[in-house]
Amino acid sequence: MTDRIKQFLADNREDGPRLVVDLDVVRDNYRSFADALPDTRVFYAVKANPAPEILSLLAGLGSCFDTASVAEIELALAAGASPDRVSFGNTIKKEKDIARAFALGVRLYAVDCGAEVEKVARAAPGSKVFCRILCDGAGAEWPLSRKFGCAPDMAADVLERAHALGLVAHGLSFHVGSQQRNPRMWNRALQVSAGIFRDLAERGIQLAMLNLGGGFPTRYLKRVAPVQTYGQSIFRALRRHFGNRIPETIIEPGRGMVGDAGIIEAEVVLISKKSQQDHVRWVYLDIGKFNGLAETMDEMIRYPIRTDCDAEALGPCVLAGPSCDSVDVLYEKDPYLLPVTLEIGAKVLIEGTGAYTTTYSTVGFNGFAPLKSYVI
Amino acid sequence: MTDRIKQFLADNREDGPRLVVDLDVVRDNYRSFADALPDTRVFYAVKANPAPEILSLLAGLGSCFDTASVAEIELALAAGASPDRVSFGNTIKKEKDIARAFALGVRLYAVDCGAEVEKVARAAPGSKVFCRILCDGAGAEWPLSRKFGCAPDMAADVLERAHALGLVAHGLSFHVGSQQRNPRMWNRALQVSAGIFRDLAERGIQLAMLNLGGGFPTRYLKRVAPVQTYGQSIFRALRRHFGNRIPETIIEPGRGMVGDAGIIEAEVVLISKKSQQDHVRWVYLDIGKFNGLAETMDEMIRYPIRTDCDAEALGPCVLAGPSCDSVDVLYEKDPYLLPVTLEIGAKVLIEGTGAYTTTYSTVGFNGFAPLKSYVI
Repeated sequence: MTDRIKQFLADNREDGPRLVVDLDVVRDNYRSFADALPDTRVFYAVKANPAPEILSLLAGLGSCFDTASVAEIELALAAGASPDRVSFGNTIKKEKDIARAFALGVRLYAVDCGAEVEKVARAAPGSKVFCRILCDGAGAEWPLSRKFGCAPDMAADVLERAHALGLVAHGLSFHVGSQQRNPRMWNRALQVSAGIFRDLAERGIQLAMLNLGGGFPTRYLKRVAPVQTYGQSIFRALRRHFGNRIPETIIEPGRGMVGDAGIIEAEVVLISKKSQQDHVRWVYLDIGKFNGLAETMDEMIRYPIRTDCDAEALGPCVLAGPSCDSVDVLYEKDPYLLPVTLEIGAKVLIEGTGAYTTTYSTVGFNGFAPLKSYVI
Repeated sequence: MTDRIKQFLADNREDGPRLVVDLDVVRDNYRSFADALPDTRVFYAVKANPAPEILSLLAGLGSCFDTASVAEIELALAAGASPDRVSFGNTIKKEKDIARAFALGVRLYAVDCGAEVEKVARAAPGSKVFCRILCDGAGAEWPLSRKFGCAPDMAADVLERAHALGLVAHGLSFHVGSQQRNPRMWNRALQVSAGIFRDLAERGIQLAMLNLGGGFPTRYLKRVAPVQTYGQSIFRALRRHFGNRIPETIIEPGRGMVGDAGIIEAEVVLISKKSQQDHVRWVYLDIGKFNGLAETMDEMIRYPIRTDCDAEALGPCVLAGPSCDSVDVLYEKDPYLLPVTLEIGAKVLIEGTGAYTTTYSTVGFNGFAPLKSYVI
């Protein structure tokens, strides 16, 4: 909680859940990334929070942008980024969207298979491509499925195909899993990447770039290492596997850039028990899985929640959202401890909610409005 | 697939996923419910699909409406329903929303605990309340958590409290789980309900109404019994437990009313393999968990998918959405069989998507637009 957010909430009282993002925190986070990895370019993952104020701030600070769709490319350009600072980082693109991106000036595309390479070659001729490789997400709180990337032994073939089709086989990318709490997880992926660099060099193709992905954590309930620790660990691993021929590197922080910059103010709608004998209370908030807190899916992200009575005794609660959907339960398997004096109508503050909240909100499930957002 | 939808899709080609709902099917479904349970009032669950055309059709046919929020109440009234045909069926309501509903003329409210009764007594004095009881959701494909309802032995106390506060202790409700495939699941809940009716009668309070909830299934891949079978089974159970003093009954179909009335047309964006050795293809569509198919969460709802080459040989696929989110995978644990000749750019039809798709769509996750919807 920053003083600026506290002041904003005090000065602008209103009903309904709302997110407030403090740009000062985003600025500090950008500088921490830039300091921790001085030779690495930062591509902010727009999907984490595409608020125009955030994009404009980052564009002004010199950030580049990792985008998932044409709409996100347009947002980045509107915020002041030139197209050479934009990467179309989604490995799943309609060919006509690639053509639109190309028309907008974008020249850097992610791929993970031959069919996608062919689309890029047709719709964005001569562009740079990087191939995403599969990477085991152990240690991440939001581990990645096998959805993105190909097996490392296929990556060289994919990039060789790109080269043959007149594209620039530019590099590799991987992702160690979102909210990755172990800085050493980059080491294994860098070792594998170095092997692919060598393999392609033997085929006469010199890769130039390594995209180290995102995964940098934000602080929820558990302590996380500072970004400097990540930077040092990654640099040591780069040195270990690439010697004195370290390629150009980029990172794609999203959660790590904006997660701790935002706080959601929500309201307790109901507190009840299911039977007279229950010792666990059910606490229902006016925000749930469908209007902002989608990342509580499978109780993966556990947000810190502050109340006005945190000094009181605590008791176990099941925490749920306001909708008529039974899956709209935030924490039940592992009950949440909240003050026993918490009352219906009380405001609560949900911390670390600057990333993956606003755009995850549904258009109006159960008639509830999307999450309101203020960037200050 | 109806001829009208087929014609609409042929006459109106466009890019991007889109839902088309055929009102003729909704009309047929309403009549099936009315015929199957002739003494039961139908309260359409607006949350399933709040499209104004659907609400207007149902209002004209005489349907009542189960609503989850003030916004849904306003939609039902705008569609032509008088306030006495509207139930505020969410057990989790802000007191000021109860007051707004009361001002709009709504006089029927769901409760499941003493605190909610007190809110209704203050904000909607003299109204009717029904108490939701917990019910084991065995047999349902979208089983309910313990989020709604209280233990049956608490319900009489909750309703007695309502009576003491000047409300009308009107009845009980339960829900046997969404997409409930066993018509006999209503029997146990009715037995428990009859016990609570007797208990309250002994305390001098005569309940008048039984809300049998929703749960009526729509046809996905597995065959489901016709609504007549549900009607007969429920009527026999009512007779068994209430004898010749069957109370007024209502049902709240949502999925069963609109599920099979809608079809989503989507496009194959990419087909790939993760390694040369894989025998499972990854098929990526332009629709996923965040722009319409949220009910594939945990692979719970398995939609039938039609292609133009369904007569060809089939092969196993992991099916995934277009976003950069790794959880946006539709079916992986149990791979989906699709034609081996399916190609990138092909259109596919996802059946049974009239319910719980449009409003579950996010406002713009990854820059993808919400699901487009056409009601014809």
